[in-house]
Amino acid sequence: MQARAGTAPRRGTRIDEVMDAIRARIASRTYQPGSRLPSVRAQAKAMRLSVSTVVEAYERLAAQELIYARPGSGFYVAGPVAPLALSELGPRLDREVDPLWVSRQALEADPAILKPGCGWLPASWMYEAGMRRALRAAARTDTAALADYATPLGLPALRQLLARRMAGAGIEAPAEQVMLTESGTQAADLICRFLLEPGDTVLVDDPCYFNFHALLRAHRAKAVGVPYTPNGPDLEAFARALREHTPRLYITNSGIHNPTGASLSPVVAHRLLKLADGTDLVIVEDDIFADFETSPAPRLAAFDGLSRVIHIGSFSKTLSASLRCGYIAARADWIDGLTDLKIATSFGGGRLASEILLAALTDSGYRKHMEALRVRLAQAMQQTVERLEALDIRPWLVPQSGMFVWCRLPGGRDAADLARRCLGEGVVLAPGNAFSQSLSAGGFLRFNAAQSLDARTFEVLARAL
Amino acid sequence: MQARAGTAPRRGTRIDEVMDAIRARIASRTYQPGSRLPSVRAQAKAMRLSVSTVVEAYERLAAQELIYARPGSGFYVAGPVAPLALSELGPRLDREVDPLWVSRQALEADPAILKPGCGWLPASWMYEAGMRRALRAAARTDTAALADYATPLGLPALRQLLARRMAGAGIEAPAEQVMLTESGTQAADLICRFLLEPGDTVLVDDPCYFNFHALLRAHRAKAVGVPYTPNGPDLEAFARALREHTPRLYITNSGIHNPTGASLSPVVAHRLLKLADGTDLVIVEDDIFADFETSPAPRLAAFDGLSRVIHIGSFSKTLSASLRCGYIAARADWIDGLTDLKIATSFGGGRLASEILLAALTDSGYRKHMEALRVRLAQAMQQTVERLEALDIRPWLVPQSGMFVWCRLPGGRDAADLARRCLGEGVVLAPGNAFSQSLSAGGFLRFNAAQSLDARTFEVLARAL
Repeated sequence: MQARAGTAPRRGTRIDEVMDAIRARIASRTYQPGSRLPSVRAQAKAMRLSVSTVVEAYERLAAQELIYARPGSGFYVAGPVAPLALSELGPRLDREVDPLWVSRQALEADPAILKPGCGWLPASWMYEAGMRRALRAAARTDTAALADYATPLGLPALRQLLARRMAGAGIEAPAEQVMLTESGTQAADLICRFLLEPGDTVLVDDPCYFNFHALLRAHRAKAVGVPYTPNGPDLEAFARALREHTPRLYITNSGIHNPTGASLSPVVAHRLLKLADGTDLVIVEDDIFADFETSPAPRLAAFDGLSRVIHIGSFSKTLSASLRCGYIAARADWIDGLTDLKIATSFGGGRLASEILLAALTDSGYRKHMEALRVRLAQAMQQTVERLEALDIRPWLVPQSGMFVWCRLPGGRDAADLARRCLGEGVVLAPGNAFSQSLSAGGFLRFNAAQSLDARTFEVLARAL
Repeated sequence: MQARAGTAPRRGTRIDEVMDAIRARIASRTYQPGSRLPSVRAQAKAMRLSVSTVVEAYERLAAQELIYARPGSGFYVAGPVAPLALSELGPRLDREVDPLWVSRQALEADPAILKPGCGWLPASWMYEAGMRRALRAAARTDTAALADYATPLGLPALRQLLARRMAGAGIEAPAEQVMLTESGTQAADLICRFLLEPGDTVLVDDPCYFNFHALLRAHRAKAVGVPYTPNGPDLEAFARALREHTPRLYITNSGIHNPTGASLSPVVAHRLLKLADGTDLVIVEDDIFADFETSPAPRLAAFDGLSRVIHIGSFSKTLSASLRCGYIAARADWIDGLTDLKIATSFGGGRLASEILLAALTDSGYRKHMEALRVRLAQAMQQTVERLEALDIRPWLVPQSGMFVWCRLPGGRDAADLARRCLGEGVVLAPGNAFSQSLSAGGFLRFNAAQSLDARTFEVLARAL
């Protein structure tokens, strides 16, 4: 991205030409590191350009730190800096399949690599038009929004909007009980910091979002898995884990469960909260997939009234993952402590990000975008399931909505082994044990329907099987 | 901020009128919660407007969650949500003066409040024109930059630029040893997570940036203060603290020290690193004020070659605090572990923020902006020091550059008491003990010259003294 607004195209091209010429002379050592560049006047004469064009080119090269100015003496060539190491690009075949395997591989993959295992939509499926409109609006917004820190809780108008959205899902969370965070992940992280002591036990779904494992490890917490069923956690196992481990936290997705695509049923939600009665258990409900739902599942936060449930979310799966902003809705007496922790560990939140998010969400196009997206995803899901079944890879459950389908491999094949093999052929898969605390999902893969539309994925899979 | 780009002004006004009218009817309960709104056609007829105008107004109100659509049935009024609590605004006089006192008061203060104690520039002093240009450029950037997660280390071009900037300060940090973070504070936080065990000892300057205390408290680390002199930490005290406490970390600012405005001298830098020889001490050098320097102080990271020194920074003091992006430069073998931790606790970084930052920094205007800013700050500093001295408030040191001046109150006055009194009159001060581990700075205040230009500040101070 280049900031060239305000420069006429013709002059912009000439400035670029001067910059390119000087860059080439620095690269070829015609201009040695530490040597003085020709004066602006001499350069302008030699290149038959105006002095102002050369001045601007020199200034931009100085901004890029390729040359530097010595007041009263002119511009000098900066010392060389090593080019980007090649090792930074391309798949890392040697990495162990740990909870960070899928995210590191998917985040590092170059665009040519296929990513049916990745946890987000292709960029072109996101709310691009709304983001562009919101950025143009941000370019015209007031100075404070461009330059100042956010207030401790974050942009009031966005918190009000989130309060209204939650009210629509039956969750009563006034705006002063909503705190903005840098991301959904940071929301979960702050809660762990606020509530956990090293060595505390935390219940997770088995399987669950792999990054919960990585997060709990960072907190030195002991994760205990509770098997997940198509209607929510297995209640008998949940009750046993409560008795045996006195866990401090349970972290889950109610709406669309990652990685299974299952949804919590009202009866399981109700019984789960009854089981928690009389315990100190706090439940973190991560609602990041809310806007994908076609028919809404119950929310634990709605049943519980934000007593022991903390509700978190973000828009990085639907609107933009490049823009970081998440939120926490929690008991009033917890919000203040969480806010202190947020300031201590990340100072304010991103005010600009919250302004852009608010503009994009209150743009009337977002709802239409999501309606179209749900239809598109449903079609992709159908096609993906058909192609997987043709390879004898069977869905554990065909999800009602969302992007994920959790599948069992044929003939006891090992998913980690398959994932390593496919990575070598340019396909990033999500092997089951990255999601499983008990490492009992070695025969499973999570597929993202939106990232599985390229037929090559299934050719590589077929060969590797 | 409203996203209205792409809508012709006249039509925009009509849509706003419909929205305002409906909002008023909801507020007055003419339209009851849960009731159906007039159909689009009926509303258009009643308001003598086109159907499309009313459709757009209804869609936007739905995006704001004030009404909601039931497919095939029309639009309904959403349930009421409590308005923002008043308690969220205004100063909190009851809060104890702890390490978070200054930041909470300054972040929460409404714009009418004077903030000579706050740690940043007024919004209008920041690089506003560059931010607006960078946002316009971002609105035209490619889809992936708008929607995708960042790579684990962050935007390569920005890391290259940071590597070149550091090379200019004598710090050899190739781009693959530079990791972007969500902020300078998050950079320090990740390093604490990476290196500290609960109970570990960390050396801090006494006084130091108050948020280091809050951060170390969040990590359950034991902070030990080392008195700060006008040339850096007191080396005898530093040597003693090394012997007595075997600290794991020392965290400091080399360039312009917060809160004293002092600078590290080459001889102190050299001796300090020699003292650390043969110990496990890691030094975190926070370079957030680098661009304010008029003559550069030495950097520990330059002397040490990123062996035991980790260099961090951000642009929230010069470019924008609303845009969150910081960085860590560290040993190659630490960067990978730090990256895993970053993903576990905040997933990616903000790709969009890093793209905007890169555009703003490589804009030739940033350097000119900073040149003008340094002059403006020097003038503000001179005026502030004169006004303070007129009240017998004496600078501990008149800083060469930067915004801070650390001052002793006359007649043994208590700064916390004064700060509480001035807060009641709409002036946020920064009392010394918020910065002091040993609580030995009760007679000091930190002033920000850029925030001290309003004469009322000194009237309130004079009365309170």
